[in-house]
Amino acid sequence: MADYEIFEAGDLELQSGATLRGAKLAYKTHGQLNSNKDNVVVFPTFFGGQHTHNEGMIGEGKALDPSKYFIIVPNMFGNSVSTSPSNATPPYNRARFPEVSLFDNVFCQHRLVTEVFGIEKIALVTGWSMGAQQTYQWGSLYPEMVERIVPVCGSAKTSRHNFVFLEGVKAAITTDAEWVGGSYKTPPLKGLRAMGRVYAGWAVSQAFYREEVYLDLGYTSLEDYLVNFWEARRVNADANDLLSMIWTWQNADISNNQMHGGDFHKALGAIKAKAIVMPGRTDLYFPPEDNEAEVAQMPNAELRPIESIWGHLAGGPGFNPVDSQFVDSALKEILAS
Amino acid sequence: MADYEIFEAGDLELQSGATLRGAKLAYKTHGQLNSNKDNVVVFPTFFGGQHTHNEGMIGEGKALDPSKYFIIVPNMFGNSVSTSPSNATPPYNRARFPEVSLFDNVFCQHRLVTEVFGIEKIALVTGWSMGAQQTYQWGSLYPEMVERIVPVCGSAKTSRHNFVFLEGVKAAITTDAEWVGGSYKTPPLKGLRAMGRVYAGWAVSQAFYREEVYLDLGYTSLEDYLVNFWEARRVNADANDLLSMIWTWQNADISNNQMHGGDFHKALGAIKAKAIVMPGRTDLYFPPEDNEAEVAQMPNAELRPIESIWGHLAGGPGFNPVDSQFVDSALKEILAS
Repeated sequence: MADYEIFEAGDLELQSGATLRGAKLAYKTHGQLNSNKDNVVVFPTFFGGQHTHNEGMIGEGKALDPSKYFIIVPNMFGNSVSTSPSNATPPYNRARFPEVSLFDNVFCQHRLVTEVFGIEKIALVTGWSMGAQQTYQWGSLYPEMVERIVPVCGSAKTSRHNFVFLEGVKAAITTDAEWVGGSYKTPPLKGLRAMGRVYAGWAVSQAFYREEVYLDLGYTSLEDYLVNFWEARRVNADANDLLSMIWTWQNADISNNQMHGGDFHKALGAIKAKAIVMPGRTDLYFPPEDNEAEVAQMPNAELRPIESIWGHLAGGPGFNPVDSQFVDSALKEILAS
Repeated sequence: MADYEIFEAGDLELQSGATLRGAKLAYKTHGQLNSNKDNVVVFPTFFGGQHTHNEGMIGEGKALDPSKYFIIVPNMFGNSVSTSPSNATPPYNRARFPEVSLFDNVFCQHRLVTEVFGIEKIALVTGWSMGAQQTYQWGSLYPEMVERIVPVCGSAKTSRHNFVFLEGVKAAITTDAEWVGGSYKTPPLKGLRAMGRVYAGWAVSQAFYREEVYLDLGYTSLEDYLVNFWEARRVNADANDLLSMIWTWQNADISNNQMHGGDFHKALGAIKAKAIVMPGRTDLYFPPEDNEAEVAQMPNAELRPIESIWGHLAGGPGFNPVDSQFVDSALKEILAS
C-alpha cells in the first residue's frame, strides 16, 4: 500500500507550452489540519529525493512536530513518485517528457493546498536544495499566503556555476551509449555510476574528505564510500527522471513567470515572509555568497549559515545530527515568532 | 622541425616494477647555461600541458628571463611529447602503458639535468598544478641541489578530495563505449567532451562564473565557453595519455619513495630550499588549506595565496595578466634573495 496520496491535477499547462494530461502530484501529510487552518507547513522534496526522504526532520519534539503542525510534503515532478518520465503515459513519457519548471511545480502545489485543503495561510515553507528553490518560489509567488520561509542550501535562481556543475553531471549520464537518447531498454548503469562519481566531489567539502568523515559513517574506505553511497544512490534511479529534475534545477529562477517578468530583484523583493536563509558554509554549488546577495534584496530575511564541513549535505534532512539540530533550532525559532 | 630536444633515458625502471625501454624525456631549454652552472631554473609541465604551454611565464623582463637564466622545461611522461601511451612502442603502448609516478618523473628529470648538463645546483624549481607537485618532489628528493622552489596551485600529496574530483573526470572518459578499455580505433570524443564539461566547474571558481569573466575573454556565451574552451582543449588530446597523467596525479605523494618511506612529514621537512608556496585563494581542488598544512612542516617556506577569482587557473602560466604578474613578482623576489 502506498504511503502517500495523489492530487489529480488534470491537464497541467506547463510554462513550456506543453500540456501534461492526467498529471499526478503525489504528497504525504503528517499531523492534522486544525480548525483555524493555521498550522500548515509545506516541505517540498529535493533532487532525487521523495517524500520519505524528508522525514528525518519530522517528528515529536522537533520543529516539524505532527502533534502541532499539519505538514504537507509534495513530491517534485520528475522524482519518480509524482508524474515523471518513468511513470507518465505516452506520448509524454520517457525521453519525450516535457520540461517542467520551478514555477510549474509550485503552481501545482498551490492548487493542492487550496483546492484539496482550502488552506489560505501557510505558517512555514521549508526545504533543502531544490526544496529550498521551491521554498523561495512559494514565498515570491504567494506573499499574502506564506508567513515564514526557511530555504536550506538552495538559491532563488540557479547560478551559472551551479549550471556548469550540472552540465558535468548530465554529460556523465548521457555519454553512456546505453542511454540511447533516453530510449534505453536497460538502465544506462555505467552512466549512472559515473554520475555518482562526478557528484561525490561536489556534494561534500574538501574538509569532509580531509577528515575522512565517511569512515565515521561506517564506510570502510574512500572507494567503499564512492561505491556504496554515491554510486548506489544513483543506479536505482531512472535516468530520464534524473535528467528531468536537472532541467528543472538548471532553469530554476523565481522571477521566470508572468508575475515577475524575469525581474529577479522584484521577485526577491516580493517575498514578504519572515525568512531565515541557511546556506552551508562549505557548500560548493550553492555557496553562501549567492544567498547573501539574495538576502540583501529580501525585505525580512536573515542569513544564517550552517557552519559545517558537510558541504551541500549539511542541510540534508537528518543527514547528520549536528547540522540537522542547527536547522531544527532555526525552524523552532521562526515558528515561535 | 621539433622545437625540443630528447633525452634518451634508456631502460627506465619504474616504481611500479615495469621497465619502460627506450624511454624519451622531451625537453626544451631557454637561454644559456653560464660557466658556473649556477643560473639554472627547472620548470616542469602541468596536466595536459606541453613545454610550449609554460612559455607565458618566460621572456625578457620576466623573472624567468632567458638572457639571465638557463631554463629547462621537461615534459611530464604521458603528456604526448615525452614517452606516453600514444607514442610508446609495443608492448607498453596505449592501454598497456605502465603506471608512471611523480617520483619516476622527477628522478628522470634529475638524470637529464645531471647527465646531459652536468648541473649540480638549481637556482629555482617552479611549476603550476602537477608542475607544482613535481616542484615539491624536486625539493624533497634533492635538497642539497635545489636552492629555491615556488610551487603554484599544487600540493605535495594529492588530497582525497582532489582524488575524488579526478574519479569524476576519469568516469566521464571511460563511460564512452568508444573508449573500449583504451583500445579505441577512433577517439572517444563523447567521453572527451564530457570530461571537458566535468572539468569546467572545477577549474575556475563560482565567482568566475558569477562575474561572467569568460565574456571578457571573448567567448560569446556560457555555452560558447564550455564548448570552445573546455571541450576544445580535450577533444584533440589522446584519452590514454590523459588517463596516464591522471594516474600520476591521483597517486602523487612526495614521500612515496625509498628516501622517505611514506613519511609525509619527513618528506616535507627534507625540503631545505627557500620556498614561496602559492595556492589560488579560490582553487577548488588544490585549496589553500592543504598548502597551509604543508608549509607548517617545511623549514623555510612562506604561504602566499594568489587573491583571485580564477580558481585553479589563477596560476596557469600566462593565463591571465594580473595573477601571472603576481606570480612573476614572487619569482623575481625569490631569485633575488
